[in-house]
Amino acid sequence: MNIRPLGDRVVVKMVETEETTKSGIVLPGSAKEKPQVAEVVAVGPGTVVDGKEVKMEVKVGDKVIISKYAGTEVKFDGQEYTILRQNDILAVVE
Amino acid sequence: MNIRPLGDRVVVKMVETEETTKSGIVLPGSAKEKPQVAEVVAVGPGTVVDGKEVKMEVKVGDKVIISKYAGTEVKFDGQEYTILRQNDILAVVE
Amino acid sequence: MNIRPLGDRVVVKMVETEETTKSGIVLPGSAKEKPQVAEVVAVGPGTVVDGKEVKMEVKVGDKVIISKYAGTEVKFDGQEYTILRQNDILAVVE
Amino acid sequence: MNIRPLGDRVVVKMVETEETTKSGIVLPGSAKEKPQVAEVVAVGPGTVVDGKEVKMEVKVGDKVIISKYAGTEVKFDGQEYTILRQNDILAVVE
Amino acid sequence: MNIRPLGDRVVVKMVETEETTKSGIVLPGSAKEKPQVAEVVAVGPGTVVDGKEVKMEVKVGDKVIISKYAGTEVKFDGQEYTILRQNDILAVVE
Amino acid sequence: MNIRPLGDRVVVKMVETEETTKSGIVLPGSAKEKPQVAEVVAVGPGTVVDGKEVKMEVKVGDKVIISKYAGTEVKFDGQEYTILRQNDILAVVE
Amino acid sequence: MNIRPLGDRVVVKMVETEETTKSGIVLPGSAKEKPQVAEVVAVGPGTVVDGKEVKMEVKVGDKVIISKYAGTEVKFDGQEYTILRQNDILAVVE
Repeated sequence: MNIRPLGDRVVVKMVETEETTKSGIVLPGSAKEKPQVAEVVAVGPGTVVDGKEVKMEVKVGDKVIISKYAGTEVKFDGQEYTILRQNDILAVVE
Repeated sequence: MNIRPLGDRVVVKMVETEETTKSGIVLPGSAKEKPQVAEVVAVGPGTVVDGKEVKMEVKVGDKVIISKYAGTEVKFDGQEYTILRQNDILAVVE
Repeated sequence: MNIRPLGDRVVVKMVETEETTKSGIVLPGSAKEKPQVAEVVAVGPGTVVDGKEVKMEVKVGDKVIISKYAGTEVKFDGQEYTILRQNDILAVVE
Repeated sequence: MNIRPLGDRVVVKMVETEETTKSGIVLPGSAKEKPQVAEVVAVGPGTVVDGKEVKMEVKVGDKVIISKYAGTEVKFDGQEYTILRQNDILAVVE
Repeated sequence: MNIRPLGDRVVVKMVETEETTKSGIVLPGSAKEKPQVAEVVAVGPGTVVDGKEVKMEVKVGDKVIISKYAGTEVKFDGQEYTILRQNDILAVVE
Repeated sequence: MNIRPLGDRVVVKMVETEETTKSGIVLPGSAKEKPQVAEVVAVGPGTVVDGKEVKMEVKVGDKVIISKYAGTEVKFDGQEYTILRQNDILAVVE
Repeated sequence: MNIRPLGDRVVVKMVETEETTKSGIVLPGSAKEKPQVAEVVAVGPGTVVDGKEVKMEVKVGDKVIISKYAGTEVKFDGQEYTILRQNDILAVVE
């Protein structure tokens, strides 16, 4: 069973704090209101905004920085995911 | 008698919690403010937003994840339905 | 004497609760904040939104589901009507 | 001396309650927050919204239903007028 | 020295209450929140809104009805002026 | 060292009150919430709004009327400047 | 490891106050609510707004003036960065 996001939505899996630390990225202060690192697990087909196609710039497996409050959390097969719009992804960590 | 949604609206039937559990999807915390799984029972013809046609990406029978507060609830032949815009559907569960 | 709505407005007559029940549609909870079934009695000529024509998808005699707070109520020949935009009509009951 | 409204504005004269009653239209409850019947006395040349021309659909002498709070009241030669946008006119009474 | 308004802005000089009365226009209630009669003293070159040119429909010397709170007041050579957008002018008094 | 504003931004230097008085312009009441006279010291290249190019209508050396709260103040080489969008400039004083 | 910003986002590194002073720029009052000088360390590919391409006007190494509250702070390899949209950059210091 899979989650297929609609439009310009992306499904991400939050990366564990331990893994975050190992990757050299440390998030400042309280993690609750801060951006976080997540891994992309599913990408929508894109959408149309203001009459122009929004192309998806991220792909499955990308590590991305998102805001904690962006998107909607869902639990799926015992794992928590976040469904958010691509526009709420700030950057890709390479 | 049938409900025919206008524009880019979709009529969905909330999937029972028991069925939800069987399908492997567990919604975290209080179900009241959380996204939920629903089954699409009717799909509008699409609409025009910002001068571009919005095509319907879901079809009758799709299991979709929606936000609890999206749309409007109606009771019909003893069953509760929710009428919402396609844009309020986060993802399709396949 | 007639009411001719402007633009994409529609004039509807709320359907009596008794009739509502007979038609098999029961509205949950307090009728005040809930959608309701209404009958279309007049339809505007359509309008232009974002540079695109809005065509009227409902016709006189249609039973429609609307939100209680949508539109403006007027009394006319002893009957209460509601003038609302087509976009505030959620679905047609067929 | 005349008032020439700019853009898609319309100048209307509220119809007296007595006349309103005679015409068969009764406005419910407190007249303060309710729509009212008015007579069009001047019509602007139209305007452009979202890059499309807004054509004037009402003409001098039309009886129209407007919301009490729409527009701006001005007193002119001892008569009160309301200047409002055509979009705030709900319907024409014929 | 002159004030040259930018875009679709207009510079007006409020007409004295005495003059207002003589011209047959009486503004109701407290003048503070009410529209007022003003004389146009400078007109901007026009602007572009939503990709369409906004043409100036008023000219120097026009008597116009504006809302008291529209625009910004400036004092200039001992005279108070108001700089406002043409869209905040309700009507021209002819 | 220079400040090069981006887009349709303009860098202005507030004109001293004494100079303001000499030029014949007196700002009413508390200067804190009132428009002020400033001199343009740098002009951005222009930008695109709603798909149309915004051309810069002011040039270095122009005396302009701006609102006190428009833009952002920066101190530079012992002089305070304000960086604001051209749209927040009300008029040019000639 | 690198941060690649999406769309019209830019990654900047705040310039130390000491360095700021040396460069001749002094920020007034409390640094918390004031604009600050930052150095661009990564630039996104640009984006589409209102159907028009937004081209990036800044490049890596540029000193820019930004508002303190613009963007989102992230810590990366022991250095704090801010990810913000190009539109939140007020000016380039040359």
